[in-house]
Amino acid sequence: MAKKHETAIRPTRAENYPEWYQQVIRASDLAELSPVRGCMVIKPWGYALWENISRALDDMFKATGVKNAYFPLFIPVNFLEKEARHVEGFAKECAVVTHHKLEKDQQGELVPAGKLNEPLIVRPTSETIIGDAFSRWVRSYRDLPVLINQWANVVRWEMRTRIFLRTSEFLWQEGHTVHATRQEAIDRTYMMLNVYIRMAEEYLAMPVITGEKSAAEKFPGAEMTTCIEAMMQDRKALQAGTSHFLGQNFAKASGIRFQSAMETEEFGWTTSWGVSTRLIGGLIMAHSDDNGIILPPRVASSHVVLLPILKNIDENEKVMAFTRELAEKLRRKNYHGTPVRVEIDERNIGGARNWEWIKKGIPLRVEIGPKDIAKDSVYVSRRDKDRKDSVSMQKDAFVDEIDTILDEMQSRLYEKALAFQREHTRDIDEKGEFDAFFTPADPQRPEIHGGFARSPWCGSTECELAIKDRLNVTVRCIPFDREADGGKCIECGAAGKGRVIFAKAY
Amino acid sequence: MAKKHETAIRPTRAENYPEWYQQVIRASDLAELSPVRGCMVIKPWGYALWENISRALDDMFKATGVKNAYFPLFIPVNFLEKEARHVEGFAKECAVVTHHKLEKDQQGELVPAGKLNEPLIVRPTSETIIGDAFSRWVRSYRDLPVLINQWANVVRWEMRTRIFLRTSEFLWQEGHTVHATRQEAIDRTYMMLNVYIRMAEEYLAMPVITGEKSAAEKFPGAEMTTCIEAMMQDRKALQAGTSHFLGQNFAKASGIRFQSAMETEEFGWTTSWGVSTRLIGGLIMAHSDDNGIILPPRVASSHVVLLPILKNIDENEKVMAFTRELAEKLRRKNYHGTPVRVEIDERNIGGARNWEWIKKGIPLRVEIGPKDIAKDSVYVSRRDKDRKDSVSMQKDAFVDEIDTILDEMQSRLYEKALAFQREHTRDIDEKGEFDAFFTPADPQRPEIHGGFARSPWCGSTECELAIKDRLNVTVRCIPFDREADGGKCIECGAAGKGRVIFAKAY
Repeated sequence: MAKKHETAIRPTRAENYPEWYQQVIRASDLAELSPVRGCMVIKPWGYALWENISRALDDMFKATGVKNAYFPLFIPVNFLEKEARHVEGFAKECAVVTHHKLEKDQQGELVPAGKLNEPLIVRPTSETIIGDAFSRWVRSYRDLPVLINQWANVVRWEMRTRIFLRTSEFLWQEGHTVHATRQEAIDRTYMMLNVYIRMAEEYLAMPVITGEKSAAEKFPGAEMTTCIEAMMQDRKALQAGTSHFLGQNFAKASGIRFQSAMETEEFGWTTSWGVSTRLIGGLIMAHSDDNGIILPPRVASSHVVLLPILKNIDENEKVMAFTRELAEKLRRKNYHGTPVRVEIDERNIGGARNWEWIKKGIPLRVEIGPKDIAKDSVYVSRRDKDRKDSVSMQKDAFVDEIDTILDEMQSRLYEKALAFQREHTRDIDEKGEFDAFFTPADPQRPEIHGGFARSPWCGSTECELAIKDRLNVTVRCIPFDREADGGKCIECGAAGKGRVIFAKAY
Repeated sequence: MAKKHETAIRPTRAENYPEWYQQVIRASDLAELSPVRGCMVIKPWGYALWENISRALDDMFKATGVKNAYFPLFIPVNFLEKEARHVEGFAKECAVVTHHKLEKDQQGELVPAGKLNEPLIVRPTSETIIGDAFSRWVRSYRDLPVLINQWANVVRWEMRTRIFLRTSEFLWQEGHTVHATRQEAIDRTYMMLNVYIRMAEEYLAMPVITGEKSAAEKFPGAEMTTCIEAMMQDRKALQAGTSHFLGQNFAKASGIRFQSAMETEEFGWTTSWGVSTRLIGGLIMAHSDDNGIILPPRVASSHVVLLPILKNIDENEKVMAFTRELAEKLRRKNYHGTPVRVEIDERNIGGARNWEWIKKGIPLRVEIGPKDIAKDSVYVSRRDKDRKDSVSMQKDAFVDEIDTILDEMQSRLYEKALAFQREHTRDIDEKGEFDAFFTPADPQRPEIHGGFARSPWCGSTECELAIKDRLNVTVRCIPFDREADGGKCIECGAAGKGRVIFAKAY
């Protein structure tokens, strides 16, 4: 429990940002690392967040005609090899299944047995295995477009893991589509990027910048990768979602052919697009403070906790009856198409109870004691405001206004994050200023520096890699709407092709 | 397309039941086998069915206080070994991950590299990995009960696979709970069995028998396994769901300890319970006919397809406007808490269109032509009735009554399956009759014989295994409510402990 003037999370953001992140997750009870290397356990409070995110995304996907399906977890190595850059991108970090049983050896130890003729890898992404299915499903232009999404777990064997941001196993959705024309596939790529922008900004209250990835940063096998990137509170960028135009690369690799209306045989044009549980890491780093996480109402695991004050045995039953009635009324309220989510915490554990819910980031805490009941009122605290801003409200007014209060909180979180992003985004044209921007001013606080630099770039991978080597800064995206007139490349001084967004990244 | 007096599915159930099953799935477009050994691709029409089943189950779980979480895909071998019978049950059929990357060998072939210190198995079920998490989460009786469910994929390396019924990878939910007392855990075991009974009977229209598994058939490591078993149209039993009381076996194996209210240290009492995509296989085999699948309305991928008849270019726009307006009206209707699901199929492909939807099992087909529109009527066909029973209905009456029609169809499917189950359930007390019951009368139709035999059994595993060896018949369950008075064991003639259900099983 944090004392007055203390923070619930130690260290604070300013003291040690990476460690603060770990402690916020621990205190919020969202997830924990498991004893299985690099894998996490998503606990109920964190999984509810994922359920709300995925339900909202699923509705948006379906509104564009996408249908869900499910494809095998295992991919034969020869499938992966069909697209050369793709296998190069994923072969170095994949879980390989080589046997199909365990048997006791002579020492009585269980060892792998039943060796497979061909090893299988656990999907790191499913372009090749889904492409194989599509090659059977698509015969004619009449079968197009194919618009499929899969909710699944994937595995990429990461050496340095960080909960939610980079784990060996994570949950995601991967959309895969096939189209008759190049333009239709490109349109779909942007359409799904727009769904991700909506998810980030309207649901997670997380402003993003968007654009195209550079050659060095795009998806292995893609012709174009578009992305959303959000600024975290340590001013680093988080790639929060990507939508790829794959050209005909995977169609050729998998043999996705169709007979056109002109009766010619053509390869399909494909896209793929995904977001993952990484979004939860982004949400944490975008909004949390030194007292823990702050959950944006649109996706919050729960909206409001009722905290009955049960100190007087004669009045407890009355307090609980009032609390339960309020809970029922709130649950009948609709907030953006779902019932208001309500918790009741009747534990008698003093101030620790309040602090626990602060750390869990629930948007609203409502205290209910005999004195409140006498006035038919409740005492409401908002997670995005100070304790001193808590207010007493008439119970009925609170029920009437809860959706407005939640919406106001949602907007405020977004506005605050947007102001932060703008504050730390700068047009930089000089190499010296660029390097200074990305170098810690205070060696005691190495993580607090930088931001998004909007700087001219000549477009060469050499310059991009030179900057990466020197500063660990990469091109996060090439904005769609940048002015073509360019200035001089921040690295080599040659004619730039316009400004791009540079940042350090997760 | 099937001609008059022909069936859409060949062979028919009577001709070759196992092959009929494969052909029904192929014709319905629910799923297909993948090139990855024993794994399936669940296609959109099949996945929608799973979404409806899992949404309904999820709501029922949550109504009992269960919360969702997510645990690692991989289980270290030493975790599996903690419970002796458990490892014995699963070691012989598991996917083993031994390496974490692929590298080119001297011949340029991609081969496994980066050998793991300890192999990992892909979860066949998660008692041990979840038990490990619970051992950290549970400290005091105040932390109990823990009520967790996980929606996940699991892998059991099956040698003989059959789509939906037995595949190497399948989708399921697995619930895991910890309780302070034996009785509370037993109560939870039955509570979740009751959820499965509701799912089977109310949603899948699939009557089940319930009871306890024999020692030979129970879950490896369980103290008691309860189950639901449904009769398929070939009279075999399908185990459709199980709920296990695990005693303190897994709590001891994983170290799930808590301090009781009396301040003593105790092991928790745990349960686990699961159903899987196997339910879809059950649904297919319970209701389909020789024209394909029949989807029970409560879980149907879609409820109704509108089939505009577009033969006259002058009237097509009018027909489509009428169709779209009807679709909108239907989608605004509520069927058991969800909007009515509506398809529009405007393809001009003649009778093939109707047959396609028959094979896909959609509950209602609605034809709309200029003549219908003139009368403001629609022509309605029910999948559970003959084509000759199709009726013309006033459009508004159809909109008003669609939920009643769907409910009536749902009940009829259930009643029909129940009548079939009763017809083929028999009390048998004589060994000769028992053997005859389970022996094909007609060698040309080996699959059509038997059913559920309610016969006395002495309770010994010897007798159970002798019957299994001779007839491939097992004890499907020991009914909870059986009369204790027993008759003589159908195998050995010793005093029986009451009747149990014998059947051949999937």
